[in-house]
Amino acid sequence: MGEFDVIERHFRPLAGDAALDLSDDCALLTPPPEQVIAISTDTMVENVHFLPDDPVGTLGRKLLRCNLSDLAAMGATPLGYTLNLTLPRDRSFSEAWFTAFCGGLAEDQKHYGIPLLGGDTTSINGPLVLNATIYGGVHPHLALRRNGARPGDDVWVTGTIGDATLGLLALQGKITDPDGALSARYHLPLPRVHLPLGGIASAAMDISDGLVQDCAHIARASGVMLRINADLVPISPAAAALGPTYLKRRLSGGDDYELLLCVPAEHSDALQQICAVHNIPITRIGTAHNGQGVHIHDATGQTITFEKAGWQHF
Amino acid sequence: MGEFDVIERHFRPLAGDAALDLSDDCALLTPPPEQVIAISTDTMVENVHFLPDDPVGTLGRKLLRCNLSDLAAMGATPLGYTLNLTLPRDRSFSEAWFTAFCGGLAEDQKHYGIPLLGGDTTSINGPLVLNATIYGGVHPHLALRRNGARPGDDVWVTGTIGDATLGLLALQGKITDPDGALSARYHLPLPRVHLPLGGIASAAMDISDGLVQDCAHIARASGVMLRINADLVPISPAAAALGPTYLKRRLSGGDDYELLLCVPAEHSDALQQICAVHNIPITRIGTAHNGQGVHIHDATGQTITFEKAGWQHF
Repeated sequence: MGEFDVIERHFRPLAGDAALDLSDDCALLTPPPEQVIAISTDTMVENVHFLPDDPVGTLGRKLLRCNLSDLAAMGATPLGYTLNLTLPRDRSFSEAWFTAFCGGLAEDQKHYGIPLLGGDTTSINGPLVLNATIYGGVHPHLALRRNGARPGDDVWVTGTIGDATLGLLALQGKITDPDGALSARYHLPLPRVHLPLGGIASAAMDISDGLVQDCAHIARASGVMLRINADLVPISPAAAALGPTYLKRRLSGGDDYELLLCVPAEHSDALQQICAVHNIPITRIGTAHNGQGVHIHDATGQTITFEKAGWQHF
Repeated sequence: MGEFDVIERHFRPLAGDAALDLSDDCALLTPPPEQVIAISTDTMVENVHFLPDDPVGTLGRKLLRCNLSDLAAMGATPLGYTLNLTLPRDRSFSEAWFTAFCGGLAEDQKHYGIPLLGGDTTSINGPLVLNATIYGGVHPHLALRRNGARPGDDVWVTGTIGDATLGLLALQGKITDPDGALSARYHLPLPRVHLPLGGIASAAMDISDGLVQDCAHIARASGVMLRINADLVPISPAAAALGPTYLKRRLSGGDDYELLLCVPAEHSDALQQICAVHNIPITRIGTAHNGQGVHIHDATGQTITFEKAGWQHF
């Protein structure tokens, strides 16, 4: 089983028209009329972003979903993706491995409507490295940015916050996760694509580095201060069952891939209606003010401080 | 020096308008009117695609140029690129390292007119991994494909063939390279961008896996057989100085990043005129025939056989 054989049998069936059968030097992506191309790219490294014994079928799906979440944060409609696969030389990758890996990709390609456009395969004296670059289409005036929040806007999040970071703790054997709900969130995020929030939200991003740090990103980009009530931050039943011990971990841990939104109060109803139509939970957790930075407090107004706001790779 | 600090000081100055200051979840690339987006992506791994003691300033440039070569092979005009940088955790990367790495990128960005659009930085318990995805614009009817060669077409290559693979041997101390001409070709390929060959060439690709293997790619995609006269394959003075010993290595070694073109005889003059205007050497090395596969022979007609046609990663 050689490199070209693997591409032919496992990856070519995933390719869309723009991939030109994966047999040319480039893919040729036709932009939707009057739209710009939103581009996001993410690398996932074994032992950093995923664990060696994670189910193989989830690896490609997690990679796609992290990237899809970036498109969701910009309000872009997914068009396709390219994939870079870097395989450890000291391990042999079986037919079953490629079948499982590509089976996961195929499942999410179908679910999210994103064909494979191209990529490369290479080898490494080191861990498995996966990279995807994803392409979406968005009308330029409907693209959601981080820099549009204004004092007075409400701050909202989709879904529940902190499950994925607790899922990692569960997979490391540090906490219990009786029904696997937390580890499932770590393995397979749920990108909030296809929410038409252009013109509704004033600022948006996806929560990948941790809520506190990502609030800081929006605060800096928009030139505002965000006040977040920790007691309003939505918690899943599985996380709630662990008690209050993990509050700071939930608010600063990464991999949520929920949306963080700033929304003028007059758009609250529209926001909630759109999310209801798409069956996506949405919760108001704070407000934007004049100033800078992020202020996290509890329901009594007591400030909560963080030694480490979120993840940095170096 | 943290991750965000490095991005702010070293990478933000490289960013173009479409990068949105590297502070949003996606880049927003505006397609040129009536053009499609050509996309190519390449991963480079330390000890596989480059050596640990390669000059840091050449690493990003080599990465860009390999990708630019793919755009050249499709006849696409470069628009920009995204970059994924995966840094070994067990080494510290100094201010000087980032200055040299980004200085190389800046130099080639300026030369080829390609701003940084986005990317990510991450860490690895393993070697340095670099990935770039490059974007170009091309009118759909002028895109060069691999599948258009027809029996009777001539086969041409730009530049000289085999220097980079000999450069690798020189850097490994296996051959001499008195003036560094060969190792220079290994460190810094010369992508043949901006050659307007749409409508001139019937098929094109860039030579990255080795001339013999890449001829086989065109032969298969086009459904023809390519006959190549090894004695016509252009050789540099530095390679010629090594004598005939390395003929097979030159024809099967990778990393040339020259163009391999199939051109109907009636377009020979146009091809040569365009290449002359752009000061790019071009040499006819064979012809396309009915059949399949690649037949390499010398000037006497004697067949040359290859145990290994080119590079596969696994």
